[in-house]
Amino acid sequence: MSGITARRVVLAGRPSGWPTLEHFRLERFTPPPVPAGGLLLLVRYLSLDPYMRMRMDEHSGYAGSVGVGEPMHGQAVAEVLRSEHPDYVEGDMVLAPSGWVSHAVSDGAGLRKLDPALAPVTTGLGVLGMPGFTAYSGLMVIGRPKPDETVVVASAGGPVGSVVGQLAKIAGCRAVGIAGGPDKCRYVRQELGFDAAVDHRAPDFAEQLAAACPDGVDVYFENVGGAVWEAVLPLFNKFARVPLCGLIAQYNGVGQAAEGDRLAETLRAVLTKNMTLRGFFNTEFVEGHYPEFLRVVSNGIADGRIKYRENVTEGLERAPEAFLGMLRGQNLGKVLVKVAE
Amino acid sequence: MSGITARRVVLAGRPSGWPTLEHFRLERFTPPPVPAGGLLLLVRYLSLDPYMRMRMDEHSGYAGSVGVGEPMHGQAVAEVLRSEHPDYVEGDMVLAPSGWVSHAVSDGAGLRKLDPALAPVTTGLGVLGMPGFTAYSGLMVIGRPKPDETVVVASAGGPVGSVVGQLAKIAGCRAVGIAGGPDKCRYVRQELGFDAAVDHRAPDFAEQLAAACPDGVDVYFENVGGAVWEAVLPLFNKFARVPLCGLIAQYNGVGQAAEGDRLAETLRAVLTKNMTLRGFFNTEFVEGHYPEFLRVVSNGIADGRIKYRENVTEGLERAPEAFLGMLRGQNLGKVLVKVAE
Repeated sequence: MSGITARRVVLAGRPSGWPTLEHFRLERFTPPPVPAGGLLLLVRYLSLDPYMRMRMDEHSGYAGSVGVGEPMHGQAVAEVLRSEHPDYVEGDMVLAPSGWVSHAVSDGAGLRKLDPALAPVTTGLGVLGMPGFTAYSGLMVIGRPKPDETVVVASAGGPVGSVVGQLAKIAGCRAVGIAGGPDKCRYVRQELGFDAAVDHRAPDFAEQLAAACPDGVDVYFENVGGAVWEAVLPLFNKFARVPLCGLIAQYNGVGQAAEGDRLAETLRAVLTKNMTLRGFFNTEFVEGHYPEFLRVVSNGIADGRIKYRENVTEGLERAPEAFLGMLRGQNLGKVLVKVAE
Repeated sequence: MSGITARRVVLAGRPSGWPTLEHFRLERFTPPPVPAGGLLLLVRYLSLDPYMRMRMDEHSGYAGSVGVGEPMHGQAVAEVLRSEHPDYVEGDMVLAPSGWVSHAVSDGAGLRKLDPALAPVTTGLGVLGMPGFTAYSGLMVIGRPKPDETVVVASAGGPVGSVVGQLAKIAGCRAVGIAGGPDKCRYVRQELGFDAAVDHRAPDFAEQLAAACPDGVDVYFENVGGAVWEAVLPLFNKFARVPLCGLIAQYNGVGQAAEGDRLAETLRAVLTKNMTLRGFFNTEFVEGHYPEFLRVVSNGIADGRIKYRENVTEGLERAPEAFLGMLRGQNLGKVLVKVAE
């Protein structure tokens, strides 16, 4: 492989509960030869996302646990260093499922070309990529918000939640965000334009949330679970919809509310309020909805109605640290690692 | 009211947990005068249904708690004794939301005429009425079963579950019923033609259910909750659908599994399996689907592919006893009370 020494971050061991730096290991490795018709990629930006925590477990629920000793999974923006593939030339920027690596070889599967003239390439990992499409498909396809309805989303300052709330505003809804701490709440309300933001760390969080939703909740975009779910539960209106795309609060097996079983209460609410709960993963909607997503969100960015932030950490070796910070909610905006210039 | 002495069963007090005979009281009363343009009805058959237990609670969840001292709610088949209403004449048989009474006056609201030539009038309270339509709309509109999928339903010998399983067979699915005790299981398998029946009282119930669903579960028609839900949970396939129309196991605030919180596990299954949970009440689908329901189920009865049983108790005074027996699962088929000849 022409003498390249590449770097990667592998899963060093499986965490029980919160992961720590010891569960990751930085390694040097020599990439395998480029297959006939394939490509050599230089990773520029790596995306860090909550679902990666689930992949660290042996039974991830999602297809594809990361094996111990194997590179962590992940999407990246990469530059084509060498190509024998008919669709790509040297210098092309692509989205690639490369994992936490500095270099990768590819047969072209799962790659998507990015147009740096259209938008900064990093948006392909955020507002115009998987997180943005998760927000779009969950809200628009499952949630189907109607004007004057109330849409609630947690992690409202994050890459998914921020798009959910801004799309809800475009749809004519009341958008209520839940976020951790006054800085994020201020960002959600003032910069992103939500109608209200509620701090889930406040001791009277449930009361504040109820006050922020005077007409109840019609769509709750669920991505955290745990105590937030319990606070939203009594607020649902008849025929409420709950697109469910993540359960960050339970990925680490902690953070559950301590007050006993809420399953009975949950099912009773689903029954008596004719609710719809729908778990989803954005890929199932790509075929039918990706073009309209790109159009709607690009337009929203262009006319200023959709804003986004990025939180960039420099250096692949700092990916574990950035990932742990994200799980603890220390970031604002989409978390990226700049791997190479 | 022309000297009629009528009888009714009222809610004597609110139960906490299982109701007993003391929570009901038989009373004599004089019906109010028939309103101008109204009707006087003689109740012939009263329907007993699990939802009535919820109505005994102060906060029923559903609109309409029964007030203490007021007649229990319920649907009945009644005969028109006197009519000033343009749509009905003396001798007509009607479905009426009369409650647990022997006589009722009506302004015509909520009545539906029955044709005794088409089917026995009691089917209007069962297979061709609310329970049958609950089965039809939940399975066909929410569950949307495809050939070769596996459909599971609890209370499979009851008026809803029995229709769910038989409709699943007509749709080309594997139908698996859950019922209490060997007699019901035999009825479900041999008479109703389910592919398998599993006794939820068996100590190895969960293992038996798994064995009866070798290809997993695609549709679970949920009407009980509790331990049955927990046994089905690990069996769900990707994109499974769960129409949820009742939670009999929790109506009495008991019968919950004792092993701690299953909410996290439930939400994780919904997430990772892209599941849909949808609470519903049959009335929301009447407008779009009632005629096709009547056609499909009538045809099924006519050609022998849909069978039903009725369990008739004689005498309004025995309605509480029959209701308690139904809650405890002592019946097979639709529970009716014959109020008057």
